[in-house]
Amino acid sequence: MPSARAKRYVPDPWNPECPSRGLIAMLGSKWVLLLMPLLREGPKRNGELMRAIPDISQKMLTQTLRELESRGLVLRRDLQTVPPHVEYELTGLGKSLAKTIAHLDDWVVQNFNRTTASRTAD
Amino acid sequence: MPSARAKRYVPDPWNPECPSRGLIAMLGSKWVLLLMPLLREGPKRNGELMRAIPDISQKMLTQTLRELESRGLVLRRDLQTVPPHVEYELTGLGKSLAKTIAHLDDWVVQNFNRTTASRTAD
Repeated sequence: MPSARAKRYVPDPWNPECPSRGLIAMLGSKWVLLLMPLLREGPKRNGELMRAIPDISQKMLTQTLRELESRGLVLRRDLQTVPPHVEYELTGLGKSLAKTIAHLDDWVVQNFNRTTASRTAD
Repeated sequence: MPSARAKRYVPDPWNPECPSRGLIAMLGSKWVLLLMPLLREGPKRNGELMRAIPDISQKMLTQTLRELESRGLVLRRDLQTVPPHVEYELTGLGKSLAKTIAHLDDWVVQNFNRTTASRTAD
């Protein structure tokens, strides 16, 4: 079984042929970098996420959440109520990724003023 | 001086008006996520970087390095030799960012096989 054997390879995102590159490409999205730490706070509804990132479009939010869901990082929970109540929450795997992303966001918050781009704005 | 006062604000990348959003957008690039950890190994020449990421175009590599340079994260060192020898290396600030990005890449390498997208490929 070639696919079972392939699973034993260590993913190599620097190799364009490696499927892990797709995950790097997904992480290479400002929306994913902004969304994941928000979901760390707990389950969130669509409207809460839209308000937390005022310039994301509904289409892009839905698309990003679906991609995160398809990779097993986010769980979409439909509470089957009237009116409908749908929540998004991180899976265990998603929580571990979100923690790593939160470090990156923290770096931006803590160091942005040291980057040259902010100085040239003076 | 409004600009001096503005500097005291804590950057908020979730606010579309905050200039730190530009840094998040730059990090939201698979090329930056792949390049920075390579530069952690030490100064690299253009050709070495091209070989390490076989599918990056020369144009995209140059553009990405220039953006990293303009933010004070990468230093371009021209050794003034014939034939020309140009090296790229991380600044202190770049090293600290690259460390955070390396954690994200490590997460991908270690957890990719657990994401659903890899399972559906079976």
